[in-house]
Amino acid sequence: MKLAVIGGGPGGYVAAIRAAQLGAEVTVIEKDTLGGTCLNVGCIPTKVLLHSSELLQQIKAGADIGIKVEGKVTVDWESIQNRKKAVVNKLVFGVKGLLAANKVKVIKGTATFESNNTLSVEKKDGSVEKINFDTAIIASGSVPFIPPIIGSKLPGVIDSTGALNLENNPKSLVVIGGGVIGVEFASIFNPLGCKVSIIEMLPYILPPVDREIAELTRKELISKGVDIYNNSKVTAIEKSNNGLKVLFTNDKGDFSIESEKVLVAVGRRSNIVDLEVEKIGIRTERGCILVDDKMETNIKGIYAIGDCTGKNMLAHVASDQGIVAVENIMGENKKMDYKTVPSCVYTKPEIASVGLTEEEAKKKGIDYKIGKFPLAANGKSLIMGETSGVIKFITDKKYDEVLGVHIYGPRATDLITEAALALRLEATVEEIVTTVHAHPTVGEAMKEAALAVNKGAIHMVNK
Amino acid sequence: MKLAVIGGGPGGYVAAIRAAQLGAEVTVIEKDTLGGTCLNVGCIPTKVLLHSSELLQQIKAGADIGIKVEGKVTVDWESIQNRKKAVVNKLVFGVKGLLAANKVKVIKGTATFESNNTLSVEKKDGSVEKINFDTAIIASGSVPFIPPIIGSKLPGVIDSTGALNLENNPKSLVVIGGGVIGVEFASIFNPLGCKVSIIEMLPYILPPVDREIAELTRKELISKGVDIYNNSKVTAIEKSNNGLKVLFTNDKGDFSIESEKVLVAVGRRSNIVDLEVEKIGIRTERGCILVDDKMETNIKGIYAIGDCTGKNMLAHVASDQGIVAVENIMGENKKMDYKTVPSCVYTKPEIASVGLTEEEAKKKGIDYKIGKFPLAANGKSLIMGETSGVIKFITDKKYDEVLGVHIYGPRATDLITEAALALRLEATVEEIVTTVHAHPTVGEAMKEAALAVNKGAIHMVNK
Repeated sequence: MKLAVIGGGPGGYVAAIRAAQLGAEVTVIEKDTLGGTCLNVGCIPTKVLLHSSELLQQIKAGADIGIKVEGKVTVDWESIQNRKKAVVNKLVFGVKGLLAANKVKVIKGTATFESNNTLSVEKKDGSVEKINFDTAIIASGSVPFIPPIIGSKLPGVIDSTGALNLENNPKSLVVIGGGVIGVEFASIFNPLGCKVSIIEMLPYILPPVDREIAELTRKELISKGVDIYNNSKVTAIEKSNNGLKVLFTNDKGDFSIESEKVLVAVGRRSNIVDLEVEKIGIRTERGCILVDDKMETNIKGIYAIGDCTGKNMLAHVASDQGIVAVENIMGENKKMDYKTVPSCVYTKPEIASVGLTEEEAKKKGIDYKIGKFPLAANGKSLIMGETSGVIKFITDKKYDEVLGVHIYGPRATDLITEAALALRLEATVEEIVTTVHAHPTVGEAMKEAALAVNKGAIHMVNK
Repeated sequence: MKLAVIGGGPGGYVAAIRAAQLGAEVTVIEKDTLGGTCLNVGCIPTKVLLHSSELLQQIKAGADIGIKVEGKVTVDWESIQNRKKAVVNKLVFGVKGLLAANKVKVIKGTATFESNNTLSVEKKDGSVEKINFDTAIIASGSVPFIPPIIGSKLPGVIDSTGALNLENNPKSLVVIGGGVIGVEFASIFNPLGCKVSIIEMLPYILPPVDREIAELTRKELISKGVDIYNNSKVTAIEKSNNGLKVLFTNDKGDFSIESEKVLVAVGRRSNIVDLEVEKIGIRTERGCILVDDKMETNIKGIYAIGDCTGKNMLAHVASDQGIVAVENIMGENKKMDYKTVPSCVYTKPEIASVGLTEEEAKKKGIDYKIGKFPLAANGKSLIMGETSGVIKFITDKKYDEVLGVHIYGPRATDLITEAALALRLEATVEEIVTTVHAHPTVGEAMKEAALAVNKGAIHMVNK
């Protein structure tokens, strides 16, 4: 089996490794850097910056826990940037090594479909190589979407990639878009002493997040000095004395904010332009490649995974779609199940969720119950000084099956693993609460929230 | 149903709340402070000290991640102690409030059995109150065990309670016993600038922990400057110029270490002396109360839970035993299942495990497989600067059922929740790996370790 994988991001390279494990002869075509957006200009570098930013917050609160710093604490932006590069390079080097160890061939260049079993790859030196394949996986990813705002091309207006590569820690930043990317960058720069303002069109931030938790996050950000303007539409970006001026409007009138930089973070769009998929009749919709639940396109033997399918733009979804595609290619019969897909937001406290939100349960007309436990009543959260969080279970009323779990609290992004497994195995509340949860951990609050579904939480008064 | 609960620790107070929820008329008898060892002189205060100690470590490594401290960093031991008291008081106050809200009566005093349905409680003022009950739960806990070592009563020789209440951060400390308590105190004091030496009789530290992980921990502690003497027996403690001198012997000869304080941490023993259980014929063995898997003693209607049963001296075990006991008392038919009991050690990185260790699997003659994933290959661990860890799955060879999971890494104590649920639901490797794990998290290494069981890990070369 000759498999061509277009794109070496977390969808493509994972698919390539899995295919090689199963005996395929694999070629990965990557026009930029292995690891894709996630590794080079997405998940990984943002978390490196956040890690430094978090330490600064902890140091500032250190006196409260008996660790006193006498003297100045400096943010050495250059060191942070260097560390970011070092971590990214180490991981990219790791991916390169893994592909080599699995005997995956990597070609640097831009792929275009010639036919149902041929790609032409244009390399940087202008030469073109033809690649024949039995099957192909398109994993071409996405790029930041810059809406047609007046002034969006001014110097100082940046996308997420630009924000990661700033030469200085900016003094002020307007973030257009209160989604996951915008909120994470606010959480990076605000603790570093940058005045951050978020402008969001919707009445709430973090649209995919359970509304109650999004609101707690909004309050937490505001308490830390971030300005948030909801229901507000940006009309233009202009040059100003202090750098830039963002003009926006809402039902209270017209406003403007001046700032050194403006980050446009309104979303990402599928990136399939170079591929010319229409040439061989691959069906698309609004620029995304259409696939079935086996990750196959309408053209037999050609699969698509990750952001270019527009399904759920998360690195771990791309990877799992890649494994499903490959296993189908190699003769198994797998389907992609989105039920256990966790979503994480790396604020402080962190947010993580899996399954239905309360809004979705309502919309679907499901007869549901809610169990909630405040982390103010959790010993470990108190010790960690992060008590503003909550854990929320949404369960089916008849069978007590867990339908969704939403965590706002320290270590949420790792705690969500239990919840995802619960959904995978259709666990009931009874099964969660008869699993022993260690003390003192944040995790024991998972059990309390599950107990709260039937008014049986121990460490709170059930209402 | 009139229920008397002897002891207001994590076994007793949880049992009392659950019983009240189910409609019982509950009295808790506590001779000291509500919350027991765990809350007052165990799990909670140690983690408060560890939290401060960890921040100091992070600050010292801050320059590596671009957060530079110019000037002195001081450990304000008094503030740390005050915070410890504040956290403990807040939680004790919380327990008091929860008991009151659930209409549980609390009597301060020392309980003694008079008959199968009467207790006499001696109060601090010398008065005695008789308590009649239909059923009783003994949850009298444990106390530190001080072995008969010459000099163990010298000033400066302390147990874990003493170590928590030290007036100063000691300059040097010898810890007798390399179990969980000893290693956690080493992890508290070593980063604070105290020279810590551990003396352990066994050839390894942390006896209940998977041997491979215990060895990684030993190396990590040594790399941080802790001296560890295995296979060594303490023969005496003497006064010396610098405070104390601990004499010990091993196959290389006789040695001694001088230190300011000596912590004896060789274990805890069941605490049932005051109860006079023998008076009503409750069966005991080596000082522990014998119970069946419904937590009932040989005397009908009298149950025992927690450390006094000597089963598994962990707060969360006591709580869960308490719930089992209460539900049986209130007419249900529950059994305590120890299969999902997680064990945590709050070192840095943390250790957490559930289910069989490799040594236990071997001993039981189980045909098992191992899946291991090093955290050096996990992006989030790299970002957090904690890459010395590993996750290890032990599975049944025939059905791929998860039998044990051992985590050494950041956030291990919260990640273990997924593993405990996996054991509870008899999950297979296939079920773990088809659960989507979020990126970038430490948790995705759980999936990789599970994939490694069948040589399918993506981010390492499977051997």
